[in-house]
Amino acid sequence: MKELVFGHKNPDTDAIVAAKAFAYLQNQLGGNVEAVALGTPNEETKFVLANFAEDAPRVVEKVSEEVEEVMLVDHNEAQQSVDDIKDVTVTHVVDHHRIANFETSAPLYYYAEPVGCTSTIIFKLFKQNEVAVPAKLAGLMLSAIISDTLLFKSPTTTPADELAVKELAKIAGVDYETYGLEMLKAGTNLASKSEKELIEADAKSFEMGGKTVRIDQVNTVDLDEVFAREAALRSAIEEESAANGYDLFLLMVTNILDSNTRLLVVGEPKDVVEKAFDVKLNDDKAELPGVVSRKKQVVPPLEKAF
Amino acid sequence: MKELVFGHKNPDTDAIVAAKAFAYLQNQLGGNVEAVALGTPNEETKFVLANFAEDAPRVVEKVSEEVEEVMLVDHNEAQQSVDDIKDVTVTHVVDHHRIANFETSAPLYYYAEPVGCTSTIIFKLFKQNEVAVPAKLAGLMLSAIISDTLLFKSPTTTPADELAVKELAKIAGVDYETYGLEMLKAGTNLASKSEKELIEADAKSFEMGGKTVRIDQVNTVDLDEVFAREAALRSAIEEESAANGYDLFLLMVTNILDSNTRLLVVGEPKDVVEKAFDVKLNDDKAELPGVVSRKKQVVPPLEKAF
Repeated sequence: MKELVFGHKNPDTDAIVAAKAFAYLQNQLGGNVEAVALGTPNEETKFVLANFAEDAPRVVEKVSEEVEEVMLVDHNEAQQSVDDIKDVTVTHVVDHHRIANFETSAPLYYYAEPVGCTSTIIFKLFKQNEVAVPAKLAGLMLSAIISDTLLFKSPTTTPADELAVKELAKIAGVDYETYGLEMLKAGTNLASKSEKELIEADAKSFEMGGKTVRIDQVNTVDLDEVFAREAALRSAIEEESAANGYDLFLLMVTNILDSNTRLLVVGEPKDVVEKAFDVKLNDDKAELPGVVSRKKQVVPPLEKAF
Repeated sequence: MKELVFGHKNPDTDAIVAAKAFAYLQNQLGGNVEAVALGTPNEETKFVLANFAEDAPRVVEKVSEEVEEVMLVDHNEAQQSVDDIKDVTVTHVVDHHRIANFETSAPLYYYAEPVGCTSTIIFKLFKQNEVAVPAKLAGLMLSAIISDTLLFKSPTTTPADELAVKELAKIAGVDYETYGLEMLKAGTNLASKSEKELIEADAKSFEMGGKTVRIDQVNTVDLDEVFAREAALRSAIEEESAANGYDLFLLMVTNILDSNTRLLVVGEPKDVVEKAFDVKLNDDKAELPGVVSRKKQVVPPLEKAF
């Protein structure tokens, strides 16, 4: 029976690549799996796909009309998944995030590890199952790991991520350091984007303390260039929050060169944000030195403060 | 930093053994992990521990006073775990059940597969990590797999479970068929137990449709012997339900020789039970031919009916 595999909404490079990699692995093991996506590729992912001459996956909005069973990669929380996730059975999850708002009625395959990238885990699964990674897929997978770990600068990086990139680089024949920096810069081309695009491109929703918290991350090489557009960004956030019922919106603007984040907070409760990061908001903003990871450095303290 | 690992409340053989096996593996890999239990061994587990000259694990009621981090085996749902589970961080889960009522604030190691027994998965992890299973532990692990799969008669049994038992039997030097039947019969010594013991020995709680559903399973070689005590069992169930706030109590009495279950239903809503199994209750009872697995044949249809 055919299954679909996909990463989270607002797909980043890992969400797209991990789906492709897991579909390839499952098909090699005798499955009938198609990788799809819950959105179109972002600038960085477009650069990656073009670099390795790979097509973008088909974009789906619903899945229950075409399959009964699905596999999730790079996410598990229902609000980050396909809209009709409740109408299908999840048979497999491969992920590297916390587990929340996820429930099944039957046992399933679930493999998560606290590493920097889903593609790192999938590379392990290729090895465990003694399936070779084709050169093109190796290039895609190392791109995903470099993207998620910001070329090993993120504190989410583990030795397993570095090892995977090095082994995959040999298979793909890629100088990963030169290529990786080029790729990350391609993803920070912000000037061409509207404010609405900026605040939605890498945004995820979380349920915390009964509130809907939306957290977006924008990578840049120049914080001031982004905050020159602060007023317009605020308006866009207020508009999106009103339209979608977000109580609290955190915009993380992260400088990938020096690994610092400036936070812009719109909505309530703001005191919870101050408590979470032990900062005083100044005009709704705060500097978070050394913070680059939403998953490891923003969600857990915020969750705890709620 | 020291961690504790434990299986679910009302431990069965897998809950006790999987904790011991996972602790052994983690310690071999450089961890500092102690296997404990959320209750004393049942008759079957006592037989197993005595047979392999192994001590019962220390029983704990709370864990947060002695550790900050824990590992769960053979369960994930909070109501089946230690009472103060919310006060500690779960770093590892190895399980073979559905995922529900489980939430973390940070990424973790989570490995689940839809196989018959947690010890089967842990045996795979020994292999992946190239750690040898000592003979005594092999005997314990094959006991857990035979217990959970009712010597491969349960529909939860997979080829991986059978293969694991065969390989472990070689390591332990055990004739698993003869030993397994003897072990299962040791677990069905019901005459010596009070009604309260019978309805609690292997009981688990589930949240379904806002109701607290309690499902107990009693294995026997003679259904009529158990139902000769029906009136006393009903009184015990009513008393326990009132004391603990169970809305609905399902007592599965399973004949392990012919793999059939007779169900006794106390509490409400009973119509959901009739819908779930497509049966008409007769004096609150129903025959469920071929049903031996709570996890695979009782929880999913009940969940669906709710």
